[in-house]
Amino acid sequence: MIATKGYAVEDKKTDLAPWNFERREVGPHDVQFDIQFCGVCHSDLHQIKDDWGGSIYPMVPGHEIVGKVVKVGSHVKKFKIGDLAGTGCLVDSCRTCENCKEGLEQFCLKGSTATYNALEQDGKTPTYGGYSNTIVVHEDFVLHISDKLDLAAVAPLLCAGITTYSPLRHWKVGKGHKLAVLGLGGLGHMAVKFGVAFGAEVTVLSTSPDKEVDAKKLGAHKFIVTKDAKQLKGAAGYFDFILDTVSAPHDLNLYLSLLGVNGVHICVGVPPTPYEIHAFSLIGGRKSLAGSLIGGLPETQEMLDYCAEHDIVSDIEMIDIENVHNAYDRMIKGDVRYRFVIDMATL
Amino acid sequence: MIATKGYAVEDKKTDLAPWNFERREVGPHDVQFDIQFCGVCHSDLHQIKDDWGGSIYPMVPGHEIVGKVVKVGSHVKKFKIGDLAGTGCLVDSCRTCENCKEGLEQFCLKGSTATYNALEQDGKTPTYGGYSNTIVVHEDFVLHISDKLDLAAVAPLLCAGITTYSPLRHWKVGKGHKLAVLGLGGLGHMAVKFGVAFGAEVTVLSTSPDKEVDAKKLGAHKFIVTKDAKQLKGAAGYFDFILDTVSAPHDLNLYLSLLGVNGVHICVGVPPTPYEIHAFSLIGGRKSLAGSLIGGLPETQEMLDYCAEHDIVSDIEMIDIENVHNAYDRMIKGDVRYRFVIDMATL
Repeated sequence: MIATKGYAVEDKKTDLAPWNFERREVGPHDVQFDIQFCGVCHSDLHQIKDDWGGSIYPMVPGHEIVGKVVKVGSHVKKFKIGDLAGTGCLVDSCRTCENCKEGLEQFCLKGSTATYNALEQDGKTPTYGGYSNTIVVHEDFVLHISDKLDLAAVAPLLCAGITTYSPLRHWKVGKGHKLAVLGLGGLGHMAVKFGVAFGAEVTVLSTSPDKEVDAKKLGAHKFIVTKDAKQLKGAAGYFDFILDTVSAPHDLNLYLSLLGVNGVHICVGVPPTPYEIHAFSLIGGRKSLAGSLIGGLPETQEMLDYCAEHDIVSDIEMIDIENVHNAYDRMIKGDVRYRFVIDMATL
Repeated sequence: MIATKGYAVEDKKTDLAPWNFERREVGPHDVQFDIQFCGVCHSDLHQIKDDWGGSIYPMVPGHEIVGKVVKVGSHVKKFKIGDLAGTGCLVDSCRTCENCKEGLEQFCLKGSTATYNALEQDGKTPTYGGYSNTIVVHEDFVLHISDKLDLAAVAPLLCAGITTYSPLRHWKVGKGHKLAVLGLGGLGHMAVKFGVAFGAEVTVLSTSPDKEVDAKKLGAHKFIVTKDAKQLKGAAGYFDFILDTVSAPHDLNLYLSLLGVNGVHICVGVPPTPYEIHAFSLIGGRKSLAGSLIGGLPETQEMLDYCAEHDIVSDIEMIDIENVHNAYDRMIKGDVRYRFVIDMATL
């Protein structure tokens, strides 16, 4: 077994603290890579606090993981020692169901294995995430990362990046489309970058007027303060797509009114309470409310390659791991531009 | 003006009763046709009772109208005296906005004019529906009806037919698809007929086990009693599409769980209370919840032509107009197989 250092919580009431644990030995198809950077996702905090139920403790969070390969299994062909590598939200799936075969491992019919707060496919071995110094992952769930990009700023692409890239690709958002991005946080700022790169007219919808300057810097063409009823009314029926990154409760009927005929509102955040949708909000304009969940492995690699080609990374604030609680506090207030990344050398 | 006989309600608390009123003279682009049959839609009752607010009285309901042309305006080219003719839910729209130009008059940006309980495009003249002996409509909103079909059974195609035909066409439901039809009433039974005609595997989801025989007679391949938790669980992830014709409150999360990856749940009914949707119900499988509203004029004509070609009509129970309240009572209980049609000769 491989001795590993990390940060873990013992239960939902305690803070993250140093914790030593063991990773499995590198199997024939495994890749071990030392973790250099790990992004801080809002879902780390949700799971630490057991907001969604079923949390498994001790928990080592982190699913935006990048680093350098230090060991490969005897049958591994895709990676060699010294390669840059990354792992996102998934470390395994059944690989045999129809969804896995289509590269939609996130929808594995037998249940995919999350990078942390989950059980391996054996149904009993817990998984531990990227707030740690090294990780062992089956090569099929390890991504190649270009050395052209700033490695620390690549980390958030593994969750915030693919979560926004995937729906924009699935719904073929691009030239001639009017895209609204609801919420300018870790996910939203990536959605702006991708929407602009794909050729759409991008409008940021935000509660914070002070984010307009940033939104424009990120490439957004327009900005609407959602608390301004007049601005909202002026945008009635305007958009083809809304990518909704907000995980706080909000009134979707309001945003559905901003869509034109055949418009699609895509949710990638998970509010704690159900949405309340009036049937007329959808029927009056043949509109759709859709959800999207990260992306499969082939698409995640496609996204990373696209980012390398188009020089796209996340805007980050680097932190030492001992400051992660302060980062959580600021994240809750929306005070991060736009993703915290832990420098794992500080572990 | 044209003296017209009909049935109207004076306000939401009174019953339908005979009422004489006037239609406009036949203008250069108008068609006047004598009404032979008019279908009874659940929305007639909703509007009589002002369930959706804003009802205009006196109200002559009815928007599934068929009959024979008796007069045409000087510029009318599409119709001649003696032709069969029909009018559905719309009698006018602006005709100039982008939606009207695309044949989506139901989404007219300036507001289309409903066949009854609405105002003409002049913003002041009320419209009166098909519970009457004759009607005057602009030729662009009059449909051709084939003499191959039973005219009385064609009437419900103008609302129940197009309301189900349109979403099935829009989402390209057909061969290789598994379609569930939720609710086997006036709309549901048409959805089954169209789904089967388009080549889909059709399953009826119904609270009433006694509708299974009828469902199979209508062509459905499978039948699931939605009150049977075991049957429902067995269908988890099974369907590509659910066409939801239910206008009573119901838990969509339950039905969304029956959809596979990329599945679409399409609502055509309007429950009185909002849907409550958990984000995970959509996100876990990239599912969509959509709405659809009747259909535009070109598609309504396409539907009628398709029905003539494929010998599709509604299953109806003919009633005398004096029995319409009894029909409403039975409709509320779901005791109609599957659409009441008023024989207007009884007026």
